[in-house]
Amino acid sequence: MASEGSKPVRIGLLGCGTVGAAFAELLAERAEAVEAATGRRPEVAGVLTREEGDFEEILAGSDLVVELMGGTEPAREHVLAALRAGKPVVTANKQLLAQHGDELFAVAREAGVQLRFEAAVAAVIPIVRTIQESFGVTEISKVFGIVNGTTNFILSEMAATGAGYAEVLTRAQELGYAEADPSDDVGGADAAAKMAILARLAFHTPITLAEVPFEGIEGIQPDDLAYAKELGLSLKLLGVAERRDGGISVRVFPCFLYPGHPLAPIEGPFNAVMVEAPAITEVTMSGPGAGGLQTASAVLGDVVSILAGDAPVHETRVELPIVADVDSSFYLHLEVADRPGVLARVATVLGEHGISVKSFVQRGSGSEARLVMVIHQCLESKFAAAVEELAGLEDLRSPPRSIRVIEEEY
Amino acid sequence: MASEGSKPVRIGLLGCGTVGAAFAELLAERAEAVEAATGRRPEVAGVLTREEGDFEEILAGSDLVVELMGGTEPAREHVLAALRAGKPVVTANKQLLAQHGDELFAVAREAGVQLRFEAAVAAVIPIVRTIQESFGVTEISKVFGIVNGTTNFILSEMAATGAGYAEVLTRAQELGYAEADPSDDVGGADAAAKMAILARLAFHTPITLAEVPFEGIEGIQPDDLAYAKELGLSLKLLGVAERRDGGISVRVFPCFLYPGHPLAPIEGPFNAVMVEAPAITEVTMSGPGAGGLQTASAVLGDVVSILAGDAPVHETRVELPIVADVDSSFYLHLEVADRPGVLARVATVLGEHGISVKSFVQRGSGSEARLVMVIHQCLESKFAAAVEELAGLEDLRSPPRSIRVIEEEY
Repeated sequence: MASEGSKPVRIGLLGCGTVGAAFAELLAERAEAVEAATGRRPEVAGVLTREEGDFEEILAGSDLVVELMGGTEPAREHVLAALRAGKPVVTANKQLLAQHGDELFAVAREAGVQLRFEAAVAAVIPIVRTIQESFGVTEISKVFGIVNGTTNFILSEMAATGAGYAEVLTRAQELGYAEADPSDDVGGADAAAKMAILARLAFHTPITLAEVPFEGIEGIQPDDLAYAKELGLSLKLLGVAERRDGGISVRVFPCFLYPGHPLAPIEGPFNAVMVEAPAITEVTMSGPGAGGLQTASAVLGDVVSILAGDAPVHETRVELPIVADVDSSFYLHLEVADRPGVLARVATVLGEHGISVKSFVQRGSGSEARLVMVIHQCLESKFAAAVEELAGLEDLRSPPRSIRVIEEEY
Repeated sequence: MASEGSKPVRIGLLGCGTVGAAFAELLAERAEAVEAATGRRPEVAGVLTREEGDFEEILAGSDLVVELMGGTEPAREHVLAALRAGKPVVTANKQLLAQHGDELFAVAREAGVQLRFEAAVAAVIPIVRTIQESFGVTEISKVFGIVNGTTNFILSEMAATGAGYAEVLTRAQELGYAEADPSDDVGGADAAAKMAILARLAFHTPITLAEVPFEGIEGIQPDDLAYAKELGLSLKLLGVAERRDGGISVRVFPCFLYPGHPLAPIEGPFNAVMVEAPAITEVTMSGPGAGGLQTASAVLGDVVSILAGDAPVHETRVELPIVADVDSSFYLHLEVADRPGVLARVATVLGEHGISVKSFVQRGSGSEARLVMVIHQCLESKFAAAVEELAGLEDLRSPPRSIRVIEEEY
């Protein structure tokens, strides 16, 4: 941990829209944790927006630049200038990287500074770091997935409700899952930019957005989804980058998945990416694909990695007490004697311990009679006491069996 | 990229069982890629097994030590000696870290060298890196998941077949998914060690294996699974580490999950881990939880990260050609006139283009008549030509609609 007087890291923030504002807030909130992890306290040294701020001045006063303006210009010029000035850059700008990756990476290498961009693909899902670092020398055969949350929300809703594309798009816009002008998302261009980036990283080859053919979901009809439902298929907008015939194929298209496919259960505005390679079999990563705070989180992770340099050795920062007795929900299985009053006696014991039953079945008769129930969340010590008392009942043919139940809904 | 004469990195390999042998082979196979990524060519400088090799000699001749012996002694002594000698260490040893983490991390920090251990938890799933680096300053509220593949295989099989625990365990042993002595896996101790490591990383608190209560799956009865099936529940051995009441709760227990839970579809010898935090919502990562090659892959990823130091800026290494025309399977939807011979004319066109139909339905009549089919994989150009010809048929009431289908089974 750094001393009180450690020199702060001055961050130049370019762009202060949804993600930029969320990043500034998150940075302030986590400044202490950043200092604990890296030895340096971060502070925003200047903010450039369309209305205010002078880029040259902000650059001169920054140790590190975070670019969250979006678009290719002037973002490209600013990022290049920062790199040339020897300042590491973190960006969430997929268009910039998908169109000008070669130039940006070359300048960063030449200047010997880092250019990080986890937030450019699938927000907080650490797919960029995983491909570049964990699988940096792995012979990846395929990277594919759902990399656009807007379209996944729309397709999920169409499948669930039977509603048409236009109607669901309007709903998505109302919920903030689609932009006022949704064409980049629904047309597939956004996913194509992300796939260009992932393909470059996975295959170490200079692919750009212009080389990625894409199709969108505007033409999907409700009855396509209805037929698919009958066949058990689910429809996703998929980005695929894979080795084929000594070259690569990188494309974006809507497609049907058979049940059992790891991407089939990904619903709503979520993203999920799979990486395949002989040495790793397959790894799947999923999570929210957008959102100001989630994207800002990915940006912050990159900032910390730049400040930390070599991965830090684990260091404990607190000593948290262990809480032994927690709330849980339980499945309870009682093999009981088939005689009058059993249920009443069991229910009385549970009631006296303040335990309430969520669902219940009574099954079999004679030597097969049993009570099976799921009880609502309660302190485990309370449940254990009830079970101990139940075990003492003469009505039980064998000791009670219980298994925890995770009640959370997803 | 390094010149021909770059100084090799000498790796001291401690342990040469399944994972050690797989690592040595993988390292040789990927040596060129490692050199491209880090500028240094790796070579195994010495191997310590129970039968041969001298630790002191191997240590003296190594730049980096990879510990794959397992067990706590002499692994602990060797790792400490390597760290004290200023040599970075990569280990896959969960018991070592779960029991002696404090000591090991303290010595590594003191020596200023890296201690990496991605392979110790969930093999090739990059959960250690994700928690330490991507989410290093994130206020994580919960880390939980399926971190033992043996038990997940057994529970999946019991649920699918109705067979008893003992019978399925034998099958797991035959398939190599369970050890001859399975007690560490089925009793929950293996999962507990992994959860101790994840809890330490997530919460920055010094928790050890001894503080993690665990239950195994030996007591699970087939009828527990039968009742659960009726309720739509699936049974998993779960490791949970979460903040509760100002402290933390870290435990391992079998439990039921409701359908829709992201861990419910994880079947067989797979692992999956979820991380929850307000700033990230939730991220789920899944993949093979064991396997010599997969574990070796995770070890190699750590070795590369140590050699690379600061994350390298992306560099293209090849220029792969883009393959435009690839094989795909398609769903094809034709709104047709309700008159004799339509099906024959459509089938003829498909046949002439060498396209074979996998499944087919004819629906509706009159102005609602339509043919819906899924065709087997073929070159997309071939399919496009067939669709173009179909579009010219007088029998069609509207242009053909097609959507790709991913045929792969999982």
